[in-house]
Amino acid sequence: MAESREILAAPDALNIADALANDFATTAIERDRKGGVPKRERELLRKSGLLNLVIPRAQGGHGASWAVTLRTVRRIAEADGSIAHVYGFQHLLLATLRLFGPPEQYEPLFAATVRESWFWGNALNPLDTRAELREQGSEFVVDGAKSFASGAGDSDRLVISANRAPDHLGDRKLVVAAVPTSREGIQVVGDWDNMGQRQTDSGTVVFRNVRVLPSEILATPGPLGSPFASLRPCIAQLTLANVYLGIARGALEEAKRHTRARGKAWFLSGIDEVAKDPYVLHHFGELFVELEAARLLAEQAASELDEAWALGDAVTPERRGRCAVAIAMAKTKATRAGLDVVNRMFDVAGARATTAKEGLDRFWRNLRTHTLHDPVDYKLKELGAFVLSGELPAATFYS
Amino acid sequence: MAESREILAAPDALNIADALANDFATTAIERDRKGGVPKRERELLRKSGLLNLVIPRAQGGHGASWAVTLRTVRRIAEADGSIAHVYGFQHLLLATLRLFGPPEQYEPLFAATVRESWFWGNALNPLDTRAELREQGSEFVVDGAKSFASGAGDSDRLVISANRAPDHLGDRKLVVAAVPTSREGIQVVGDWDNMGQRQTDSGTVVFRNVRVLPSEILATPGPLGSPFASLRPCIAQLTLANVYLGIARGALEEAKRHTRARGKAWFLSGIDEVAKDPYVLHHFGELFVELEAARLLAEQAASELDEAWALGDAVTPERRGRCAVAIAMAKTKATRAGLDVVNRMFDVAGARATTAKEGLDRFWRNLRTHTLHDPVDYKLKELGAFVLSGELPAATFYS
Amino acid sequence: MAESREILAAPDALNIADALANDFATTAIERDRKGGVPKRERELLRKSGLLNLVIPRAQGGHGASWAVTLRTVRRIAEADGSIAHVYGFQHLLLATLRLFGPPEQYEPLFAATVRESWFWGNALNPLDTRAELREQGSEFVVDGAKSFASGAGDSDRLVISANRAPDHLGDRKLVVAAVPTSREGIQVVGDWDNMGQRQTDSGTVVFRNVRVLPSEILATPGPLGSPFASLRPCIAQLTLANVYLGIARGALEEAKRHTRARGKAWFLSGIDEVAKDPYVLHHFGELFVELEAARLLAEQAASELDEAWALGDAVTPERRGRCAVAIAMAKTKATRAGLDVVNRMFDVAGARATTAKEGLDRFWRNLRTHTLHDPVDYKLKELGAFVLSGELPAATFYS
Amino acid sequence: MAESREILAAPDALNIADALANDFATTAIERDRKGGVPKRERELLRKSGLLNLVIPRAQGGHGASWAVTLRTVRRIAEADGSIAHVYGFQHLLLATLRLFGPPEQYEPLFAATVRESWFWGNALNPLDTRAELREQGSEFVVDGAKSFASGAGDSDRLVISANRAPDHLGDRKLVVAAVPTSREGIQVVGDWDNMGQRQTDSGTVVFRNVRVLPSEILATPGPLGSPFASLRPCIAQLTLANVYLGIARGALEEAKRHTRARGKAWFLSGIDEVAKDPYVLHHFGELFVELEAARLLAEQAASELDEAWALGDAVTPERRGRCAVAIAMAKTKATRAGLDVVNRMFDVAGARATTAKEGLDRFWRNLRTHTLHDPVDYKLKELGAFVLSGELPAATFYS
Repeated sequence: MAESREILAAPDALNIADALANDFATTAIERDRKGGVPKRERELLRKSGLLNLVIPRAQGGHGASWAVTLRTVRRIAEADGSIAHVYGFQHLLLATLRLFGPPEQYEPLFAATVRESWFWGNALNPLDTRAELREQGSEFVVDGAKSFASGAGDSDRLVISANRAPDHLGDRKLVVAAVPTSREGIQVVGDWDNMGQRQTDSGTVVFRNVRVLPSEILATPGPLGSPFASLRPCIAQLTLANVYLGIARGALEEAKRHTRARGKAWFLSGIDEVAKDPYVLHHFGELFVELEAARLLAEQAASELDEAWALGDAVTPERRGRCAVAIAMAKTKATRAGLDVVNRMFDVAGARATTAKEGLDRFWRNLRTHTLHDPVDYKLKELGAFVLSGELPAATFYS
Repeated sequence: MAESREILAAPDALNIADALANDFATTAIERDRKGGVPKRERELLRKSGLLNLVIPRAQGGHGASWAVTLRTVRRIAEADGSIAHVYGFQHLLLATLRLFGPPEQYEPLFAATVRESWFWGNALNPLDTRAELREQGSEFVVDGAKSFASGAGDSDRLVISANRAPDHLGDRKLVVAAVPTSREGIQVVGDWDNMGQRQTDSGTVVFRNVRVLPSEILATPGPLGSPFASLRPCIAQLTLANVYLGIARGALEEAKRHTRARGKAWFLSGIDEVAKDPYVLHHFGELFVELEAARLLAEQAASELDEAWALGDAVTPERRGRCAVAIAMAKTKATRAGLDVVNRMFDVAGARATTAKEGLDRFWRNLRTHTLHDPVDYKLKELGAFVLSGELPAATFYS
Repeated sequence: MAESREILAAPDALNIADALANDFATTAIERDRKGGVPKRERELLRKSGLLNLVIPRAQGGHGASWAVTLRTVRRIAEADGSIAHVYGFQHLLLATLRLFGPPEQYEPLFAATVRESWFWGNALNPLDTRAELREQGSEFVVDGAKSFASGAGDSDRLVISANRAPDHLGDRKLVVAAVPTSREGIQVVGDWDNMGQRQTDSGTVVFRNVRVLPSEILATPGPLGSPFASLRPCIAQLTLANVYLGIARGALEEAKRHTRARGKAWFLSGIDEVAKDPYVLHHFGELFVELEAARLLAEQAASELDEAWALGDAVTPERRGRCAVAIAMAKTKATRAGLDVVNRMFDVAGARATTAKEGLDRFWRNLRTHTLHDPVDYKLKELGAFVLSGELPAATFYS
Repeated sequence: MAESREILAAPDALNIADALANDFATTAIERDRKGGVPKRERELLRKSGLLNLVIPRAQGGHGASWAVTLRTVRRIAEADGSIAHVYGFQHLLLATLRLFGPPEQYEPLFAATVRESWFWGNALNPLDTRAELREQGSEFVVDGAKSFASGAGDSDRLVISANRAPDHLGDRKLVVAAVPTSREGIQVVGDWDNMGQRQTDSGTVVFRNVRVLPSEILATPGPLGSPFASLRPCIAQLTLANVYLGIARGALEEAKRHTRARGKAWFLSGIDEVAKDPYVLHHFGELFVELEAARLLAEQAASELDEAWALGDAVTPERRGRCAVAIAMAKTKATRAGLDVVNRMFDVAGARATTAKEGLDRFWRNLRTHTLHDPVDYKLKELGAFVLSGELPAATFYS
């Protein structure tokens, strides 16, 4: 750990990500088939030091920018969309501590994360309102469940959310807390069996009479409790965008490899080599331009995020809004350019590339699944309102 | 059999296809997972009488039009793309006998097909030139192999092809023959393991010293031996188009079912029901218009084919060319409209529809695989040459 | 007249349309530049007998089907979108008499149309509510104005609409009437100066104290007063769709002519002739497939309309709804396929085709203008509601 | 002049461009109608100092980067595509002097350009081979003509090209020279009458026995005579891309203005204001994302160009190739995103925005015309070859 941490300047982080990606790639097809939790790969991540990228140096982390951090997410997604997802969420969950809680809460958690190589998971889905938190003496208790709890399996700590039992006004305020995954009453069900992102373990977490201490609740400023705190969904969305981009990039590389391996062009083309086929080249040209456009939007958004992040509580709603706009553009474009790649890769790679042993469908299955996280149509609507009327997106858990 | 045959007027054929499709649908997800050969379902097809649709009444068949026959293919593809493929190829292979051989050859084979409920498979891929046929006394022997031999498993008879051993001019003419699948030396390897169309058994057939009788060779007029014979690729291409359309239609139905089941609209939509969501409705509207356009092109092409088919040897190259153009349009449009449906169905059905147990990715996997049969770009090029210069597509095994 | 009328069987109507289109084409560029009213061409239409196509034989018309009638609209639109628009509206306005009024009203008007070679115009735009009708003794008076009054200039008769002065309930019911264009107080302003459809004279009609007789009001069943009467917007929409298709078809023909005239292919293509350029051919192929798809949807919709039209008052809301769905599909597809043609025609025709003297931009200007009649997005939404929930479009003046 | 030059730091150049654009916008519609040469506007450009942006400070220019220079092109294109084109070509032609000639040639020309406020035009189209240069004593003479000579009218100096009379090997090498527009025998015909870019004066220049001095010929290294010299087409292509982007941006702004002015939403939308219409917002969102993507690609390409430009003769073929790739991406994307904006702007702005007095069709006419400069399909092919095989685009006048 110590070594890896010391070398984690930006190029080093990318080198480490690169090495991990190369490792993950060798088993990606097989692990996609199996589903479940990629324990060996998660262990490699723990050991790599990359889980501490965004943690400030003061707490033993690397103080990496979001730009660099998200590039590592993207690199890993080229090899494995599932691992990239939970790896990206590690940083999102650490940011959640920073954004929703005070220093006396997040600093010790950061330090312990570095010290203990904690992998964070989530059980936070705010659209699933089954989990309820109620007072019990000076403590709290949570009962219920959360769906889509990506990365909960094999995690050390969880960021969870629950709605408070209704008060006299009927209010069911959302509460977010950081707890050990091993806390009594927490069950990571392991029921994720999906067409894509099969090793994200995005299934159900059940809470049965789970104790939560007041000191574990992220209450100051709390969920979306300030413009700065409202950067949380920005980070979530931009993380997704980078996972999408990485998956698409991985697909394009495979498309190249398979196309080159075809050798001969279509017999009616009047051309010898497939590498000279005008339509094949045109497809590659189109896919590349759009993917590069998406990459630039993602980089621009990361810059915006890094600037806003650096401002801390000085972030204004306008600033946060501009950041959300840049990120919405990046996510929209990554979604569309990416889906185009994972579909059309076969038009260049040809019929033989559909053999199961190459597992090329995993790119489509992973991206198609993950791009449904929240509807891109509503992102475009938000962007339209910004363009037409200068309206900034309202802060919610999805924008 | 007898009963089912008697009732096979057009609406009856569709009713039977409908009943079979409903049956196949109940196990489609599970069988997709397993791959292999759907023996039970193939047996139901044998019993249904549908395998004899295009056989003339004189030989005990139903003398159905291509329009009706292909509608049954489409209906079955809604439930199961794999079965629709091999079922569609049954008609294509019967047509091959009719088009490449003389009455004294195809009439007895037709009669036997009806009598014995033969399911035909193929080992014909003309782009795979490994199979070679050489004379041996008054007979012939084939050695080598064919890939993409859809429907060979569990077949009763095979239409095979092989290149003749080079003559003094170095010519390696393609020879097509109809032989029993059980002929000594034929091995249906069963090595098809693909990302889609998993129960088409489109793997390898190996020939080891396989005897072929002169009377089994379809030599008059032989492969593409006349304008009429050259309707063979037309039928192949239009069969594919109908499989694509059926898969897409099945996907749209599933998309509707899952969308309606969602109930609530996206929380940021300002709308209660997903069935009122403007973007969801817009997607459905777009997909529907394009699919309906593809259907009309397929119906128009089937009319052209039926007219050309009825002409027999009176088919001129021009007529055949016009038919090929109509079919190229249908196939191109079915490819594109279909791929759009199997991708975008998730944008309406939402994230929960990606659960493995619903198996909705099979529509994409099946269609994406099958639409790679031959490149749509070259179909568009042919169509362009027709539009711009009035050139009709040259007859090859793919156009 | 007499002769032309007598020969107006379907092929004859198309032949006459063809001859007129050829004539109109020779001056289309020049007239597009000038704008205003194409008096000479309107006179040719009056003499051709085509203005009476949908009038029943009993009143001296040709009793042509909508399918045939709309094909003539399409043919004329190939040469001139403006004339096709007002020519198409002739039939729509005659249908309006039939649909909104009783036989004692429309039969004499039909007979007079044939006898006097009337060209009908409109001042009906229901979204412009400035025109008001109030009682004055036993008659009525209209004051106000209507915008988008296509074909009012040089017309013999007008179908106008006005809102009744509010009654005690505040109701401002829409009233539709048929009046002579020469009626005192009617001013066809001639203020249409638009980027496209420049000779449709779709400007303002002003009403100053215009007398309207009770017998001129189409009150039984009145506007959209029955399911049958509600076919009126169906006819309007399908007429537009056919104008769009014709414009696009004309553009494609010009694209072919200009492309062939280029001779040499792009110097980097490695190809001699532009007619062999793979990308040029691909563009033509794509445009052709989509245009043909749009044509088939338009033909299907015309069949639906002819069937509903033949039913008269027996048309049920369901039947009318199905007709509206078929027409919405046709219009949507004609809009999109058409816009694609008028844009991409330049990608094949090349830079030299942009010279003003060829006037090729008129196709885009005409189609882009006319396709804004009502938003295609809401047509798609209606279609989506039909697909998803089986809802039929509500009858309005636009669906 | 003096003042404006002194203040031409980057923000100042943009401010001046902004002021000019605002001025040009007020007459853009009228001047588009008239065509011809915008003398007043060209005079304003001469006075603005912007014509000297890329000239080094040593010769009295501003030494501005390509990034800044091209942003001014873009800004002016928002208001007027024609002026932006010839203004952009000013910089391209100055760069041509720099790239194809030695310091002793370009330095005095630069200084004179600053001193005399020269506006440069071109008569260079390498695909038009009618102009021929032959020796006459110690000088040369040019006869023939060049088409597409943008900015020749009202120019002070011309960069011309001609093919040498065939030598004994039949070689007709292309020669490029810088001459006064007023040179005897040069006739700027003024025959440009086009559907778009109507004030670029891109017509014919005729040469009748035109004297050219050896010192006017740019021979060292000559046209595309070195990797550095081969940056010339890069600059041309990136200039076009920025003109496209500017036109599209101007169109988007007009679309916003007109959409907001509509007020009411479509009556079937169930919404009051058009600014809340989900489809209108979605269109704006989509157009914005793609335009922003195109902008980022253009900025990235400008950085690549600035870096290569700074290297001078140290530019390697690889470096030049990478620059060409970045620029091809920018141009491709600007073409597509731009065309989408100028078409779809009407879907949001609505039918009333088609009135001639608003002249909104000029955006489409300008962009559609200009994007035909060279075929985008071959740019995509080049990009595909780069992606698939790492091939860098060969240096030609178009890539």
